[in-house]
Amino acid sequence: MSEPTARDVGEFGLIAAVTARLPLSDAVLLGPGDDAAVIAVPDGRVVATTDVLVEGVHFRRDWSSAYDVGRKAAAANLADVAAMGGTATALLVGLASPPDLPLRWAVELADGLRDEAAVVGAVVVGGDTVTADQVVVSVTALGTLVGAPVTRSGACVGDSVVVAGRLGWSAAGLRLLQQGVIDGDVVDAHRHPTPPYTVGPALARAGATAMCDVSDGLVADLGHIARASGVGIELQASALADPAVSLNDVLTGGEDHALVATLRGPAPDGCRVVGRVVEGSGVRVDGQVVAGGWEHFA
Amino acid sequence: MSEPTARDVGEFGLIAAVTARLPLSDAVLLGPGDDAAVIAVPDGRVVATTDVLVEGVHFRRDWSSAYDVGRKAAAANLADVAAMGGTATALLVGLASPPDLPLRWAVELADGLRDEAAVVGAVVVGGDTVTADQVVVSVTALGTLVGAPVTRSGACVGDSVVVAGRLGWSAAGLRLLQQGVIDGDVVDAHRHPTPPYTVGPALARAGATAMCDVSDGLVADLGHIARASGVGIELQASALADPAVSLNDVLTGGEDHALVATLRGPAPDGCRVVGRVVEGSGVRVDGQVVAGGWEHFA
Repeated sequence: MSEPTARDVGEFGLIAAVTARLPLSDAVLLGPGDDAAVIAVPDGRVVATTDVLVEGVHFRRDWSSAYDVGRKAAAANLADVAAMGGTATALLVGLASPPDLPLRWAVELADGLRDEAAVVGAVVVGGDTVTADQVVVSVTALGTLVGAPVTRSGACVGDSVVVAGRLGWSAAGLRLLQQGVIDGDVVDAHRHPTPPYTVGPALARAGATAMCDVSDGLVADLGHIARASGVGIELQASALADPAVSLNDVLTGGEDHALVATLRGPAPDGCRVVGRVVEGSGVRVDGQVVAGGWEHFA
Repeated sequence: MSEPTARDVGEFGLIAAVTARLPLSDAVLLGPGDDAAVIAVPDGRVVATTDVLVEGVHFRRDWSSAYDVGRKAAAANLADVAAMGGTATALLVGLASPPDLPLRWAVELADGLRDEAAVVGAVVVGGDTVTADQVVVSVTALGTLVGAPVTRSGACVGDSVVVAGRLGWSAAGLRLLQQGVIDGDVVDAHRHPTPPYTVGPALARAGATAMCDVSDGLVADLGHIARASGVGIELQASALADPAVSLNDVLTGGEDHALVATLRGPAPDGCRVVGRVVEGSGVRVDGQVVAGGWEHFA
């Protein structure tokens, strides 16, 4: 007998199989199973962000396990909350999938979402399951702030540029997978990133003037900060060098969800200084302009 | 020259074209353009729900305009917040689409989301755009509560069952479209539902013991309330009759996003009494068991 599919168990069977494996937390005032969830955000502000992962675009089912896709989908959103200086508390998940999707795949996806969320103490509080031609996982993360949100627009001339987390590993790992290499730390980094979540709130407390997560590539994402803040960014190649990957991957590879921030004073643990904010515009590495970054629809 | 597509303008061009058309509100502490949005929820509780609409499953681009798809996607989520007794304040939108999607389609989708959200005073605060083989629109609604959330589990024997909004119109409209009828109120009801949003909080204030929106069909959704509350539901066919549609459509048609609730006292404006809560289990119409309701993967 073949293993059960989404079609075999139906929408409600799929939801029941998944939600049975999900814990709740003190922040969850009402969890899955009703029209909507209710989550506590004690200071009256909720941080909210959405990312969508598509089979064949962001992951391949033959290269990544459902568990890894779940971790990656959660990580992309949890990192966005961290990049505001916040801490995520809840995820909502939309799963569009072919009717012949193995039930096991959906359950392992939920396990991955659950385990990545648990890294920051967040839980899955709701979702929706529908049929589609390819697997599409849309995740919304909700979170709380302690101080003001750290936007992209506050970088000041003279600030240091600091990075926390890996850069370029996901891009290098994808290339290895395309070449047939299926094992190793760099390949695993593509399958699921490990963002430095707690450094986000630590940077906010340390007075970060601007911050974002590196989802499009360091140069592209620092370009967003430079444009929004009306400043230029100078990076030092020597400070960015990583023996595991090329400098090009470090500068242009996305989806590692490292955090990059600007600040005046000392950086918190987990950060390294890689450059400084200068007058002008754009992003330079050792004085040279670098193009690049990942764009959809290109 | 053909009209521009998502590929022509790129991810950032698409986001810029859409966000330029979106208003903000007092509840939005930080809007689109950063890693995450920040929304005020003054009493420290946020209501959150997600629904996913898939081309070919929930809509067809030749039957519904992008504007109608936007209104429908927003309505499904706004109704879920209303069904908790809440009022939606913010939407986050994930749009997966083929690269050849006309830019105009995405812009009109955003206009529909914006205009439906405006019905309750909500605004679009963030989102994500990615490539996919078919159009998938995932919407998350966030909202606020005044009292306790109205769940599905509080119905008591002796309560009245009340309905606000249309039942069966969307299902009847879909059948007309399948038969080649493209005009008329019933067809338009399929293209975009008109949920009675403000009746949700009014029912909460009136002491509703259980409530949900009718997305799967009246009998199916009341079945959820009956199961969660450990009661039976008796409906009167005469109270449900609607000259525009068949009784079968009224009982089993989903996606109109009417509200159905149970309560002891007088019902607020906009509600009609259609039955009562009884001992036992299941849902009966004039004493007869009715099966039905829409299920994905079936």
